[in-house]
Amino acid sequence: MDYEAARSQFPVLERQAYLNAGSNGPLPRAAVEAAQAWLERDLAQGRAGMAYIDELAALREQVRAGFAAVVGASPEQIALTDSTTRGCQIVVAGLGLGTGDEVVTTDEEHFGLLGPLHASGARVVVTAADEGAVLGAVTERTRLIAVSHVLWTTGRKLDIGRLQEAGLPLLVDGAQSAGAIPPDLTGADYFTISAQKWLCAAEPTGGLFVREPEQLRVALPSYFAMTAHEADGSYTARDGARRFDSGWLSGPILSGLVASLACHPEWRYERAAEMAARCRDLLEPLVEVVTPPGHSTLVSFRPAGDAKELVAALEERGVVVRDIPGHGVVRASCGWWTSEDDLARLAAGVS
Amino acid sequence: MDYEAARSQFPVLERQAYLNAGSNGPLPRAAVEAAQAWLERDLAQGRAGMAYIDELAALREQVRAGFAAVVGASPEQIALTDSTTRGCQIVVAGLGLGTGDEVVTTDEEHFGLLGPLHASGARVVVTAADEGAVLGAVTERTRLIAVSHVLWTTGRKLDIGRLQEAGLPLLVDGAQSAGAIPPDLTGADYFTISAQKWLCAAEPTGGLFVREPEQLRVALPSYFAMTAHEADGSYTARDGARRFDSGWLSGPILSGLVASLACHPEWRYERAAEMAARCRDLLEPLVEVVTPPGHSTLVSFRPAGDAKELVAALEERGVVVRDIPGHGVVRASCGWWTSEDDLARLAAGVS
Repeated sequence: MDYEAARSQFPVLERQAYLNAGSNGPLPRAAVEAAQAWLERDLAQGRAGMAYIDELAALREQVRAGFAAVVGASPEQIALTDSTTRGCQIVVAGLGLGTGDEVVTTDEEHFGLLGPLHASGARVVVTAADEGAVLGAVTERTRLIAVSHVLWTTGRKLDIGRLQEAGLPLLVDGAQSAGAIPPDLTGADYFTISAQKWLCAAEPTGGLFVREPEQLRVALPSYFAMTAHEADGSYTARDGARRFDSGWLSGPILSGLVASLACHPEWRYERAAEMAARCRDLLEPLVEVVTPPGHSTLVSFRPAGDAKELVAALEERGVVVRDIPGHGVVRASCGWWTSEDDLARLAAGVS
Repeated sequence: MDYEAARSQFPVLERQAYLNAGSNGPLPRAAVEAAQAWLERDLAQGRAGMAYIDELAALREQVRAGFAAVVGASPEQIALTDSTTRGCQIVVAGLGLGTGDEVVTTDEEHFGLLGPLHASGARVVVTAADEGAVLGAVTERTRLIAVSHVLWTTGRKLDIGRLQEAGLPLLVDGAQSAGAIPPDLTGADYFTISAQKWLCAAEPTGGLFVREPEQLRVALPSYFAMTAHEADGSYTARDGARRFDSGWLSGPILSGLVASLACHPEWRYERAAEMAARCRDLLEPLVEVVTPPGHSTLVSFRPAGDAKELVAALEERGVVVRDIPGHGVVRASCGWWTSEDDLARLAAGVS
């Protein structure tokens, strides 16, 4: 698939310099058409019957295999969720953290990770977003390290492989990683996937990688956790990470997901990295870029004036980025679909 | 709205005797059109920007008010979830049940309730699906009573108000109640709502009633739990039951939900009850009906032969019902939209 053909899958790019995949990716036409066709079918034929159930089960496995391919894992290690937040909840609850335990995280994390950590009752130890600082904060009470692969604020990528040194369970929030940069699960015991961001699927959709599914307790079982159960709720667990599937997903959602997973060209990671580098080059003469070079597909920068106002002004010009509340920075998301012209429009709006 | 006009909202009813709202309701055309229009909009305009976020927030409040009206509560007492299972997880985790605690439930519950109860670590005490038996099973270690309002198996309705006698927290699974029978929250501290069943919305959608939101711990926080947070995840909780909102919901889902909530006529409960009674009358000469009269909109019956085979044979004739695995019964769901002809087709297929 050549670049123009690949990019033309996304109608929003005809009008906007849409640089916001870190929130929600551009949707490919095929994903919307698949969802609409399933809606028509649900409308006309109802949502019942053996063939219907079997077909949805098959779609679930297609999505599972797709997520596995994206992160470089086995489908047996992938659960279907509705968000990275849900993945964090599943892991934190499964580990049974509580009072007296500590978990180490960084000062640049999203509430989707922090909320579940806080709710666990463990002491949340916050360090600088730096591998050495994280390792230095580990004590004998630490039961989990929980960090982002790519920080949603600055776009810095953490060397999660290095965090293995601690010899502790490692939960990685992959919201800004899966589908954006080449997969790397080194050291990660748990890795969350957002489908609505860099995988360009409808929201809310996502996945969870669990390296050793049999070793984590199923704390938040859905109907999909089991193959058979007793009247007191005890049950025979489903194979592998399927037991962590967080709930039912509809035909429109699953069929759209399959189409979104299929829209990405082989050269996705190379070109996305190139466009992020190009974005840096264009912005560096104009503003303070806070993202280190070569880290991710996010480019965060500190504007001269108010970040929120700049985002609004750019929106008026058809340039879609976002600000990061509390950090005073604006964040541009560069995908493989991003064009030179998109970036030129951003730079023109910033200057 | 007269009956014919109201029924004509559901294209599936033109072809099938669709008697399966206990799994998934028939979809009204307006809900599918609303979802499709939002998909088109997300495709062409992207999923970003201040107006977009504001509009989705307003849709969330419309849905919240709609759920509140359905169960007879205040919107402040309603959280948006994706399923009744999620609602049960939120409550059970929030109560912090554990080893040494007991929870009393019945032997006719769905895994969506049983799974979370089992995962809590508390001892799950199972009694006959009868108010007296439930009250009789309470001990001084009991910390929660958790039962369905309408049992998904037999369609029997429990007098949840009577369970107040125990003076314990009461979690009610409203999957087969909300939208099907007149609202009754008497005695319920927590009540789960499924939107995809009797409210005729796309799946997965639902809600959770929490009588006193400030009294339940937020054990599974999503981004919607808070208005502001610290780096360690501690936060200022959102007002009322909003703090239990389980996650992001998309424009297609929310706009479809609003349309589904609006499709029901004022006479919904009266006519649904009439059709369930009529269904009983037609089936009683043919099979053993296990649902007691006047309880709910479900009519479960024990066929002479195999339940699963009968369901398949009925499906061939365009009559959509389901069997209840492990119980040997077939279940027909009668909504206000159900016609005499639908029921005649069911009876003809059964005899």
